[in-house]
Amino acid sequence: MDQAIEFRQATRQDLDRIVEMLADDVLGSQRERYEQPLPDFYVQAFDAISADPNNELIVACLDGEVVGVQQITFTPYIVRQGGWRATIEGVRTASSVRGRGLGSQMILYAIERAKERGCHLVQLTSDKQREDALRFYGQLGFEATHEGFKLKLT
Amino acid sequence: MDQAIEFRQATRQDLDRIVEMLADDVLGSQRERYEQPLPDFYVQAFDAISADPNNELIVACLDGEVVGVQQITFTPYIVRQGGWRATIEGVRTASSVRGRGLGSQMILYAIERAKERGCHLVQLTSDKQREDALRFYGQLGFEATHEGFKLKLT
Repeated sequence: MDQAIEFRQATRQDLDRIVEMLADDVLGSQRERYEQPLPDFYVQAFDAISADPNNELIVACLDGEVVGVQQITFTPYIVRQGGWRATIEGVRTASSVRGRGLGSQMILYAIERAKERGCHLVQLTSDKQREDALRFYGQLGFEATHEGFKLKLT
Repeated sequence: MDQAIEFRQATRQDLDRIVEMLADDVLGSQRERYEQPLPDFYVQAFDAISADPNNELIVACLDGEVVGVQQITFTPYIVRQGGWRATIEGVRTASSVRGRGLGSQMILYAIERAKERGCHLVQLTSDKQREDALRFYGQLGFEATHEGFKLKLT
């Protein structure tokens, strides 16, 4: 990116734009519901994240406009000699700025936040259908050492 | 298992046994430090988990003896129409009881806890070196839809 990206905690006013970005994606379009008014479950999720000191919903801004979002969760674990890990989830960039390096800046920001919080590991899972994302995380130094299992509850 | 397994929140008094089980494992033996006295980083991790209402360190007991451990983290997410997920980590059973179905009971317990907490998804990652574990989670209905990436911070 030529211009400087600013990172900050998301506010309730960003939520509409966040869901819009999440839905503007080949998998997100099937999984999300971007409607007006915004479905209440998104507001409830936002409030739960905001109330939790171990969760951060981060937006990336360019010229005052929100162009990226990611959630970082900080978790203390007993395994691997104790310590904290940062888990990155829900990384999306606006389609208008894709391919200009914003994704890398976002992940590097998350890594910095993880260091500030004293984490010894950063982790994430990426859908195996997202071939570009899998390559992207590998290029950033992440190792795909684990299988990521999901079980939907109904 | 013939006898009934009891699940409960771990206490500080269980921590020595928990680390002993974590270290009694082909990968854990390289990653953990089971020593007397127990290294302080384990105690700090235990205290951080205990202080967090969204983290539970669960032990499985047989005849009053701790024979299994797992950590369950509850996280609110914006993605997938908001809602909470349960993440399972650090699942270990005592070598003395392996192969008797305790692992399945532990995961089923975690799934029940996830339902009680209103989660719509249970997730975990498993090291690709753990071929038995990968098969085990598949048999329990988990789908390996994601790549699990890790980045160690130094």
